[in-house]
Formats: sequence, structure tokens, C-alpha cells
Amino acid sequence: MSNPFPLHSDEYWMAMAIQQARRGLYTTSPNPRVGCVIVKDNTLIGAGAHLQAGTPHAEVHALQDAGNEAQGATAYVTLEPCSHTGRTPPCAEALVKANVARVVVAMTDPNPLVSGRGIKRLQDAGIAVTQGVLTQSAEALNPGFIKRMTCGRPWVRAKLACSLDGKIALANGVSQWITGPAARQDVQRFRAQSCAVLTGSGTVKADNPSLLVRPEQANFSDYPLTQCRQPLRVVIDTRQQLTPDLAMFNDGQPVLLVVNGQLKHEFSDAVTVIPAKLDAASQKVSLTWLLDELGRQGLNELWLEAGAGLAGAFLDQHLVDELIVYQAPKVLGDKGVSMLTLPDYQQINEAPHLKMTDLRHIAEDIRMTYRVMTPDTHAAAG
Amino acid sequence: MSNPFPLHSDEYWMAMAIQQARRGLYTTSPNPRVGCVIVKDNTLIGAGAHLQAGTPHAEVHALQDAGNEAQGATAYVTLEPCSHTGRTPPCAEALVKANVARVVVAMTDPNPLVSGRGIKRLQDAGIAVTQGVLTQSAEALNPGFIKRMTCGRPWVRAKLACSLDGKIALANGVSQWITGPAARQDVQRFRAQSCAVLTGSGTVKADNPSLLVRPEQANFSDYPLTQCRQPLRVVIDTRQQLTPDLAMFNDGQPVLLVVNGQLKHEFSDAVTVIPAKLDAASQKVSLTWLLDELGRQGLNELWLEAGAGLAGAFLDQHLVDELIVYQAPKVLGDKGVSMLTLPDYQQINEAPHLKMTDLRHIAEDIRMTYRVMTPDTHAAAG
Repeated sequence: MSNPFPLHSDEYWMAMAIQQARRGLYTTSPNPRVGCVIVKDNTLIGAGAHLQAGTPHAEVHALQDAGNEAQGATAYVTLEPCSHTGRTPPCAEALVKANVARVVVAMTDPNPLVSGRGIKRLQDAGIAVTQGVLTQSAEALNPGFIKRMTCGRPWVRAKLACSLDGKIALANGVSQWITGPAARQDVQRFRAQSCAVLTGSGTVKADNPSLLVRPEQANFSDYPLTQCRQPLRVVIDTRQQLTPDLAMFNDGQPVLLVVNGQLKHEFSDAVTVIPAKLDAASQKVSLTWLLDELGRQGLNELWLEAGAGLAGAFLDQHLVDELIVYQAPKVLGDKGVSMLTLPDYQQINEAPHLKMTDLRHIAEDIRMTYRVMTPDTHAAAG
Repeated sequence: MSNPFPLHSDEYWMAMAIQQARRGLYTTSPNPRVGCVIVKDNTLIGAGAHLQAGTPHAEVHALQDAGNEAQGATAYVTLEPCSHTGRTPPCAEALVKANVARVVVAMTDPNPLVSGRGIKRLQDAGIAVTQGVLTQSAEALNPGFIKRMTCGRPWVRAKLACSLDGKIALANGVSQWITGPAARQDVQRFRAQSCAVLTGSGTVKADNPSLLVRPEQANFSDYPLTQCRQPLRVVIDTRQQLTPDLAMFNDGQPVLLVVNGQLKHEFSDAVTVIPAKLDAASQKVSLTWLLDELGRQGLNELWLEAGAGLAGAFLDQHLVDELIVYQAPKVLGDKGVSMLTLPDYQQINEAPHLKMTDLRHIAEDIRMTYRVMTPDTHAAAG
């Protein structure tokens, strides 16, 4: 039976595939979020998303959903179908076997070692392939996976919560609460989609935080698994100031602790202690080494929830991809603690320059999202 | 001939009268901005706005525009018609003479000495009067006039231009330019609608500014007079650090200079020097005295364009009505100069609490407008 509605565009169906992919927002890593819909005679006949590493890919779910109808249909996939046998069989093969007539792909595989192979396998089997439909939206699903595949490092989002005048605490250290409950709930959702949360010993000493996702606060109506996947906590504590009694070392969830020198304390099995590589000049932990290490561990998205010093160091070394600032309608004044420790710049154009990509109200606070301009893009933008 | 369109509401026509009133945005002070439209048979037959003190009021312009047709018509006025003979004859009288059948008024006269008298004059003459149509929008035309009439002080708008992390300059004092040209152009329009611009000696010493409106920068397409009306510059210089050679003392436009002690310098005729009343405790100029003084001088809207110290003092003393912040997508870091000098608060809830009323992009910067919550309203809001 043919569909009475006007013929939908490739963009229409790809947008639906991207919607599918978002079901895996919190759960697919180290794999990418991928969605697939199967369409025949202008009608949706199958849909699927990848949800968790080791479980079937989006194409397999969608083909199962479509059944025999898949023959002669068009498959819309947000990412080039895989051509290799990993923990599951190759999806390009599954599409060939199902006898689909056409495959539309939003973006190719960012892994330079396999990019294009899935498309070639389809084409070799006589399947028509269309590429480049809603590429930017598909890329936005997987900034971390793409960055890790192309640079070997996770995508770094630095979060700061401050007053209108850029303060994160009063002079006496009091900081609870500058932003409101809705903003803090929003943070839970970013933690939940991150593979790891990174912080420094100062924050852990001051607040004794868990840095875990509190599912009841995250207000998940779209969380696909019964059990909340927790981010790895990564804590920089080169001087070993943190003691094993702190909350995060005793909740059974994994912690990666980066220390320097002879190990002073004994931690529970959930805590992995690794020796820091120090930066020769500053004698602080090398942040580029750390990001390389986290990339090697398969971490796609890193949520930096740290104090002014560590956040400033990441920013100053151009290691922040996205800056997310929750700003409260309060002013704490010049005696308060500034949100970012940065060098003593002599000219305004030496300071980090940002580009706002999103601005929204979160109850009475606002949330601002920025891309951090690298010195090159900054210069190019004038 | 009757109008073929559906019968318009009182709100429809009052919105048109408010549009008229906005023509006087830059020019009516010390008078309020007032607009009037005259309507008969669902058709606009006259419109007018007050533009400048000493020239006809809105009602007179609109009645002239309507001519004899005004008889039996409805007049929509954003502010209660005056009942007293000032520099022009009373408008209530003019409406009676024109034989209008009905008058719709958005708000009563905020001056407690005359409020209600104009409406009574109309009712005594047998004219039907409707009140309370779009009252909030009409009040928003004249925050300064209303505040001066009810409290004797001008409406204070404090302007700050800062980086995302709340800095107004680098440690070395460099501040040009944090915000972009579009934000600076926007500031020109606020200066233009203000009766006075207030600053401190520090800002004048550092920047030697004119603080005048630069019409070519203000990008006026809606300025109704041929000559730009300049705001009074009010400068606090208790220690008499400013010398007569500075730019603002030599452009022929008026300056009100607030000093303390024996006069050290001789200024041109455009500069009025007045002795400051000092606050007994701080030995700084009493800001409440200053606002009372500016109210006595008939100033409705005050634009505070000052450094962190003076802006902080106004805010800390709960003397700011509106805070307008231009925030640039840059971070200057902890070494920079903080935007507001405030006391060393011990608890977050001691700090000034704001309520955002407007948020918009101004090219790559954002502009945030806040009402400043008084300690009472803050407590009431929880």
C-alpha cells in the first residue's frame, strides 16, 4: 500500500534516523551513537538505534524491525555502516543480505583506517549509496567519538557555574548554591552523557563530591537502560592530598587517580592509580599526556568539572573544545573567587576568545555554550 | 464611511498610542513620553505624540490631526490628560472642547498632587472614561518620570561591559575593547534616552571620555529633532582630581561636577560645580543626597557609566533600578579587574540578587537586563 502523504525528502528520513540515534546518547560509548530507519514506498518500515557496546548495531535493529519488507527498501544510517567484524558482525554485510536497494549515509566513518570501506562494500554489491545528507547534525551526535578517532583524545567540555560577575565562591569559600536546582539538574544530564568526569584534588577536598550521576536528579525520561551508566571519575592529585576515606573512593564505582611519586595511600579495588607524567616546565601533570591516556582508554567525551586553576590550565593550553557556563542572576563582588585562573595578559587579544553556539534560560539562571577558538581560528576570524 | 475591518479592541488602539509615545523616547524630559490616537467608527482619525517640553502635548497634536471629526470620537491616551495650565493649556480641557465622546487612559498621572484630576474634569463634562488599558506597557515608557514623581529620584540604570568572567579590564588597565562595536552603538542609544550620565573621577581620568551621544554612532533613524539632545554629564570628584583641560569640560555641553572642600580649579561656564554632601560614616559623597539633588533638577533617567567602585556602591546601597550588562565572549582571567566592588559577604544570600528581564544577542556579545531585587522583594521571593 502506498503512502498518501507527499514524497518525503532524504533529509526528512535522515532527521528521523538522527532522532533514533539520540536514544543512545547516554549509553553507547566507547561506540558512537548511531540511528537507522528503513523506508519503502515513502513509508517507515523499520527503525533502530545502537544502545550499548556489544549489543546489535542500529542497522541490525532496523532490519529486524522491517523483516522481509526490507528487500528493495532504502536504509537511512547516521554513520557509514561498519565493514569489519567486531563484537558484532559487519552491518554493511547485513544490509547486502537484506537486499536493500539504496543506502543513505549522513557521514563516513571518522576512523581513518576503515573510513569508506563500508560504503565500498555496499557499492560492490550493487546498492546505490547517497552520502552527505544532514552531515553536520550527524556529526553533532558524536563529537567525542569523532575527536578520539581523528586525534586520539576525548572531546573536552569544561563546565563552570558562576555569578553574573564571574565568581564561583565568596572569599570565605562558600559556594553553595550560586546556581539554582534546574541548572544543577542540567549538569546531571551532561555528566550522564560523558564517559568520564575530570576534576582536581582541590575540588574533591573542598566538597567531597561523588561526581556520579544521580538518576533521580537527572530527570531521565529518555534513559534507555534500567541501570544508570556512571562516568569514570578521573582525579588529578599529583601531591597525593586525597585520602582513601573520601566518598568517591568508597562507592564501588571506578575512579582513575593520577598521582606523582611513591604511593602514600592504599585505595579500594575500584580505584585505579596511575603515575602522572609531569610537564617539564611547570612540574604539574601534563594535560596533553592525560588526554592522550584517556583517549587510549576509549573515552569519547570528557566533562571537566573543576576549580578555577585546572579549568584555566585546560583553557590556556587550548585543550577545551566546549565551554559550558551556568550563570546565576547574582553578583558576588570583587572579593569573590574568580572562575578562571589565567596568565597575566598584556593585551585583550591574548585572552581566550570564544564563540557562542547556544544560549538558553535554565529557570532563573542562563546556560551559555561556547566553542573555544584556537589561536589560529581566532586570528582568521579577525 | 465605516471601516470594513473587524471592530478593534481598546488594547489595539492603545498599543498604537504607545507606539506614538515612543517617538518622544529621546526628547520629552523632564516631561513624560505620551502618545494619543483618536478613533471614530473603528477608524484612526488622528495621532500625536509629545516631543519636547514647552511644545504641545500629545492630545493637542492628535486633536489637530483629527480636526472637526474629533466630535463624538474616542481618544486613547497613554497617560491621564493634564488638568493644569503649565507651559501649555490643560489637555483635559482641550478634549472637552473638542467634544470627544470617550477617553481611554492607560495610566493615571503618577504625580500624587494631580493624579485623578484630569479624569475627573473629563467625567464632570460628561465624557465616558475607561482606565487601565495596557497600563504596564504605558508605565514602561516612563520609568524615570514615574519614579521622580513618586520618590523624587531618577530611575537609575547601571551599565557594565565585561568579559564572560566578569572582568572590565586587564590587570594593566587595558580595556579597549572588550565588547564589540554593535554593543557600543547600543550604549549610545541608552545615553541618548537618559537625562544624565553619571560617572566618577576615576573613569574620567583613565579614559578622558566625552560621555556625549555620538549621533552618527547611535544610528538614529527614529530621532525626531534635527539636533541631538545631549545628556547632562554628572561627575563625582570629591577630591578634585579632575583638571579643567579634560575633554568633557571643553565641549560647551553642560557638566555637573560634584566636589568637596575649597574649589581648586576654575572651569568654563558650561560646568556647574556643586559641593558634595558627604556620608558621615564613609566620608564619600552621599549617593542618596545626590539622587535627591538630581531628582530636584528634573532628571528622569540616569545612566550610570562608571567603574567597579561607584557601580558597586550604588548596587550595595540598593540604589540601582536596572542593571544592563554587555558581556563579551572572552575570558580575561583572575588577574583582570572585577566588574563590581562589593563588601566581603559571608553568605551567598547577602549578595545582591537580580531578576533578568531581557536577554539578547548584540552581534557577538550578549546584553542582559536585570531588575535589582531590594532586600525585601528578595526575601519575599524566597
